[in-house]
Amino acid sequence: MQEQGFILWFTGYSGAGKSTLANAIAPKLRALGKRTEILDGDEVRENLSKGLGFSKEDRDTNIRRIGFVANLLARNGVVSVTAAISPYRQIRDEIRSKSQAPFIEIFVDTPLELAESRDPKGLYKKARAGQIQHFTGVSDPYEPPQKPEITVRTADEGIDACVTRILAYLRSRGLTG
Amino acid sequence: MQEQGFILWFTGYSGAGKSTLANAIAPKLRALGKRTEILDGDEVRENLSKGLGFSKEDRDTNIRRIGFVANLLARNGVVSVTAAISPYRQIRDEIRSKSQAPFIEIFVDTPLELAESRDPKGLYKKARAGQIQHFTGVSDPYEPPQKPEITVRTADEGIDACVTRILAYLRSRGLTG
Repeated sequence: MQEQGFILWFTGYSGAGKSTLANAIAPKLRALGKRTEILDGDEVRENLSKGLGFSKEDRDTNIRRIGFVANLLARNGVVSVTAAISPYRQIRDEIRSKSQAPFIEIFVDTPLELAESRDPKGLYKKARAGQIQHFTGVSDPYEPPQKPEITVRTADEGIDACVTRILAYLRSRGLTG
Repeated sequence: MQEQGFILWFTGYSGAGKSTLANAIAPKLRALGKRTEILDGDEVRENLSKGLGFSKEDRDTNIRRIGFVANLLARNGVVSVTAAISPYRQIRDEIRSKSQAPFIEIFVDTPLELAESRDPKGLYKKARAGQIQHFTGVSDPYEPPQKPEITVRTADEGIDACVTRILAYLRSRGLTG
């Protein structure tokens, strides 16, 4: 019997909590016997997209590459957990439509003000100062999912509660055995 | 018990027989219960490296990306079969040293004359006519592996015999159970 892979696609603002959630859920999935790989936006940029910038075209290319790799892994039984902002709905939907394994979109619905107040990498500060162009939420749009499989609100729920709810959803879909 | 992944890294001239061998061995590996993914040079260029050319720097970047994805798959129990020319020894050795799963380098040692006479994509003809720059074997170097795990000579052996020999090697390493 071979494992069922799938894609957990987190989307939301910088600072919304995507990487925190990805890093919190991955060990839980591994404990359930699932091979799990986190595709972090920054790591993928370094290894697959060096030279690309943050224009819409370059962002789209970067997100498509994450989708390509996530699908390669997922169709081979791995859980791909992605944590890139992925601001454009059309690209996310394109990746969903091409996915050869279940695609679970998780909208990390953190208000911009809260995400900006966290500013874990100091990027909002730079974007407000005009030192970064095309910054999602400041000078570039974010298009929320219209029908995400799951929405988590880190303003109202702790990380553990969000993770528990995501795991319950996966179990209800029969994806974690 | 989780599957053991590994990387089968074919290297050799265009027309040497890399893709033919990759496509012949993949179903045999699947029949042995191994999840197997072929990372073909052209497919990866389309999905991960669009915009890159064939200068040494761009080739190196393309091959490193194949290595990155092959490793992601292999460390998750998948057999990654790569079939890119990958002409530069240093980059292949770099990928080997970074691999988190067994790296099996297979030198497809087909003489240039034979590979050129096959010319499956008509590329040698274009390279000789000066319509393609930086073409391995014509206007760009090929650095053969110094200690490949396996060498196959398609001039002397049929494809089936090569595949049988590769499978025997994998079995001897305990990689196919």
